[in-house]
Amino acid sequence: MDFIEVIESKKLGKKLTDEQIDLFARAAASKDAKDYQLAALLMAIRLNGMDARETASLTISMARTGDMLKPDVGGIPVDKHSTGGVGDTTTLVLVPLVAACGGKVIKMSGRGLGHTGGTIDKMESIPGMRVELPEEEFIAIARRVGCCVVGQTSELVPADKRLYALRDVTATVDSIPLIASSIMSKKLAGGAQGIVLDVKVGSGAIMKTVEQCIALSQMMVDIGVRSGRDVVALITHMYEPLGSHVGNALEVREAIDVLSGRTSGPLLEVSLLLGEQMLILSRLADDAASARAMLLKKLEDGSGLAKLREMIQAQGGDGRVCDNLSLLPQAQAQMPVLSRADGHISAVDAETVGRAAQSLGAGRRTKEDIIDPAVGLVMHKRIGDFVCRGETVATLFVNDPKNAKTAADLVLGAITLSDGPVKTAQLLFAQVTKDRTVTYT
Amino acid sequence: MDFIEVIESKKLGKKLTDEQIDLFARAAASKDAKDYQLAALLMAIRLNGMDARETASLTISMARTGDMLKPDVGGIPVDKHSTGGVGDTTTLVLVPLVAACGGKVIKMSGRGLGHTGGTIDKMESIPGMRVELPEEEFIAIARRVGCCVVGQTSELVPADKRLYALRDVTATVDSIPLIASSIMSKKLAGGAQGIVLDVKVGSGAIMKTVEQCIALSQMMVDIGVRSGRDVVALITHMYEPLGSHVGNALEVREAIDVLSGRTSGPLLEVSLLLGEQMLILSRLADDAASARAMLLKKLEDGSGLAKLREMIQAQGGDGRVCDNLSLLPQAQAQMPVLSRADGHISAVDAETVGRAAQSLGAGRRTKEDIIDPAVGLVMHKRIGDFVCRGETVATLFVNDPKNAKTAADLVLGAITLSDGPVKTAQLLFAQVTKDRTVTYT
Repeated sequence: MDFIEVIESKKLGKKLTDEQIDLFARAAASKDAKDYQLAALLMAIRLNGMDARETASLTISMARTGDMLKPDVGGIPVDKHSTGGVGDTTTLVLVPLVAACGGKVIKMSGRGLGHTGGTIDKMESIPGMRVELPEEEFIAIARRVGCCVVGQTSELVPADKRLYALRDVTATVDSIPLIASSIMSKKLAGGAQGIVLDVKVGSGAIMKTVEQCIALSQMMVDIGVRSGRDVVALITHMYEPLGSHVGNALEVREAIDVLSGRTSGPLLEVSLLLGEQMLILSRLADDAASARAMLLKKLEDGSGLAKLREMIQAQGGDGRVCDNLSLLPQAQAQMPVLSRADGHISAVDAETVGRAAQSLGAGRRTKEDIIDPAVGLVMHKRIGDFVCRGETVATLFVNDPKNAKTAADLVLGAITLSDGPVKTAQLLFAQVTKDRTVTYT
Repeated sequence: MDFIEVIESKKLGKKLTDEQIDLFARAAASKDAKDYQLAALLMAIRLNGMDARETASLTISMARTGDMLKPDVGGIPVDKHSTGGVGDTTTLVLVPLVAACGGKVIKMSGRGLGHTGGTIDKMESIPGMRVELPEEEFIAIARRVGCCVVGQTSELVPADKRLYALRDVTATVDSIPLIASSIMSKKLAGGAQGIVLDVKVGSGAIMKTVEQCIALSQMMVDIGVRSGRDVVALITHMYEPLGSHVGNALEVREAIDVLSGRTSGPLLEVSLLLGEQMLILSRLADDAASARAMLLKKLEDGSGLAKLREMIQAQGGDGRVCDNLSLLPQAQAQMPVLSRADGHISAVDAETVGRAAQSLGAGRRTKEDIIDPAVGLVMHKRIGDFVCRGETVATLFVNDPKNAKTAADLVLGAITLSDGPVKTAQLLFAQVTKDRTVTYT
């Protein structure tokens, strides 16, 4: 069988056989296919689709192109993945809470690109923190501490690395089967038994409608069924930044604020929703209500924050940041962004806010860009709030003042005001499990 | 504007603007786009299509990526193009006949790849023949002799060179807009004012149905209208090899046989149909009937053959081949292929016959293969003929006897026999001009 026959089949709208899909995955991980042949097939998949069986088959074949971890962590290994948002630092809140409840979490994360942040970049803003660890070491930390957050090792899913980079430059990112197989192949290879997916919907997310999110979620849950993993997907809010802090050290700060009990709100709420499912998949709770009670207890008695401190120290970082936020990188200047009008906030475009932080140096435009961990912004207002002309809607954390004007204009441009009162935003839109899809309105 | 935006637009099924199309053509001719980006766009075009305006725009932009000839040949420059067939050597018959009638033909041709032959390869089987000529030289020959047959120079349509090679390895050959723009960009750049297209339909052709051929023809005629050229397309028979000879020197021999009056049949008939249109576009005849009378006169009085001899000599070849066929390369052995059954021939799969000749060394599998000019085969039977068991249906011309068995099996496998009588094959299926499409049944 020839790679060109695989392209030909998908071009003609046929279902690919498992053998064809395996050839595709192996070709992507080796030099057996040229980039231009992979690109042609990716576009054919984007336009002619893949069904659930094809997508699961691709995911499993991709996972097998590299190491397949079977981590011995002294419990059920669980993981969580977000499709990417702005001000979305649930990982740093929920991972310590779940571990404090007895869960075993190896969280493999990526770096940020574009307007969304990356957990690994946030972690690296903590002085001394090591995120590129050998497999034996991070498995040992997860076993001993209960959690660790690491970058994906280069031995995991080499096929995905090449396809992901190609999709970015060939306009083939927005394919549900390709997104599903990219995410899930890494989770399968990472060895998680229980996988909780946070599928973001809204202005700051790849997916703009709940229907697209449900289709993607069902495909990923189905992959779990076909590969013997337990998968639950929550479709959550990304119509405005989830937390109020956007930027790497700033988001670590907000996570510590939440775990210290100083802050609550949507970031905590979504972290609890995801954490509940992780405890259920860990067989540590029977239902969401009892899982929530366990998580809230660990929040209130400080053991969630203690677990974050313990994890940071185990990974070489300065755990004192949990008690002294001034040990995190600090921007040289803070500059208020003042509203130019009165009104009720009806929308905050999350992507634009993300780009404002990016323009200050918090994000990358290309993979080679170096990010500034200290810069970013804090939003003081959310959808539903009233704002007066001249009132501070956000604070910029700036190291290079020449970027401030662009960032301030972006922030103000992201906000839509209306005359009448506006309801606060809904956080959870749907939950997809292997048995059912429940939508919330 | 960014190349990725062009891919994005076509992926979403939008019409590309002239600016986007021009960016595409220029990127293909330069290093401004990567092969994988071109491949993704080619697949998006294959699946989402391009309309007549987009296709004409692409053709003109592609033509402009290289030299645009304005050949001064002392008359209206006319050209002819075939979409490729087996035993299809109309060029060597009609070009001298049209020139003998006063036409001015610069025929730019390609080399063969796969199961179809290339005119340039056939010409090179004539001892001494030069087909890679500088522009000034071939224009001078066309002006003086009335015709010449040359390979496309590397300065013409560099965008097509890269796209053509990419399509071959990304399963994007079978796109009507891409075929139309590839063919027509070379004709526009070559400077022909009148262009006659021979669009082949059937088992040996890229297009398998008359409807596909009509769609392709209408698109190419429309490109002519939009670029100020006169274009006529004939949709002709390729359900069996057109001539009886398949192979490079063998096809030259058959063309000489036709021009000498020793042979007639479908090869002559299709050459006359195409030649009629070339004379009309040359303004040398008012209608097909008078054009045919002119061509037949030049055939009968020997001036067509004399013109071929003159052209060969002008291009450095040994013109004596026109009178002494033994000066052409000769295969070491001839081997008969014997029918294994009785019956009326109802089909002769042209592609399979082409592959039989290819297996003897007459064609290339990859661009690097060296062809053997002497080898090939002669079919003694056509659709409609009756054949007896043990009767010779074809003769193989062989230099390497170990290839003979494969070739003989292919030839016999190409032939379908039926019990009842079978009609001979129809030669002309449709004619497409800018004013109308006429189909023949």
